[in-house]
Amino acid sequence: MANGPRSRCPINLSLELLGDRWSLLVIRDMMFGGRRYFRELMRSEEGISSNILADRLSRLVDAGLITRADDPAHRQKVRYSLTQKAIDLVPVFVQLGAWGIRHLPVSPAFSVRARVLEEGGPRMWTAFQNELRRAHLGEEIEVDPAYPSVLAAMQRAYRETLEGQEAVDGRAR
Amino acid sequence: MANGPRSRCPINLSLELLGDRWSLLVIRDMMFGGRRYFRELMRSEEGISSNILADRLSRLVDAGLITRADDPAHRQKVRYSLTQKAIDLVPVFVQLGAWGIRHLPVSPAFSVRARVLEEGGPRMWTAFQNELRRAHLGEEIEVDPAYPSVLAAMQRAYRETLEGQEAVDGRAR
Repeated sequence: MANGPRSRCPINLSLELLGDRWSLLVIRDMMFGGRRYFRELMRSEEGISSNILADRLSRLVDAGLITRADDPAHRQKVRYSLTQKAIDLVPVFVQLGAWGIRHLPVSPAFSVRARVLEEGGPRMWTAFQNELRRAHLGEEIEVDPAYPSVLAAMQRAYRETLEGQEAVDGRAR
Repeated sequence: MANGPRSRCPINLSLELLGDRWSLLVIRDMMFGGRRYFRELMRSEEGISSNILADRLSRLVDAGLITRADDPAHRQKVRYSLTQKAIDLVPVFVQLGAWGIRHLPVSPAFSVRARVLEEGGPRMWTAFQNELRRAHLGEEIEVDPAYPSVLAAMQRAYRETLEGQEAVDGRAR
């Protein structure tokens, strides 16, 4: 991007900013995994290296997608937060996840969160975005009683699928 | 991908397949620009080179996102078609375009098609997907009378915006 964007088409500009795979995976882990610290983000399923993670975090800060701040609770730690710009990517992740489930050899455990979100529809996506705004931006937004915590619901479904798999694996032994 | 995917998360798998920026831009030009031939696809706004285009076309064929066939009308030409797998990416493009419009310095002319589609909502997206299925897969699907041609509506809005800009540019001189 040193020479400016190649075109000002919204798809092209979005891809120039997000087209690097690792950047979107870091946002995914913050958004769906609730990870806010470097050490937590190092545990990505895809085995991100510490230098790539450090580089992408600083690029994401420069792009206005995340912010970094000293953690009020732990003096030596830095905590990352999603910005509104990143939280607005929820519908992109929903559609990308739905497409992956439909067409690619996804694993049941890793796809259950995307499935929960797809099936929940727009009201659940808004509730999830509001939950992220409360957690990352400190905004006081009313909780939709239908979805007290979308993150918790997704995590619960994920754990249940993992346990179901272990039960099947155990029986197979 | 020679060593297999890094994880079977739907987001990761989608990004491993689509994360290359040029691949999605080629699909964009086929989907929203109605381009089916190599020479047409060479005219991308972003200035794709012929060797990158040739490489991405063959990768997209391998990935099952497009097919190539001799053109019935021109014996020496090869025509590319989107597959259902690619047509199912319409909602991803809708959301990516909507996000770009909201957060990035898009140009009015290049964003008007994304805006038309975003504002049209799910019924228009389905009509657009059906239109692509008729054109690329030869399927006989009923036309939604509310949207006889989404592609034509987008192109019309694009031309009107271009003409509006030229009028403004003319007055500014």
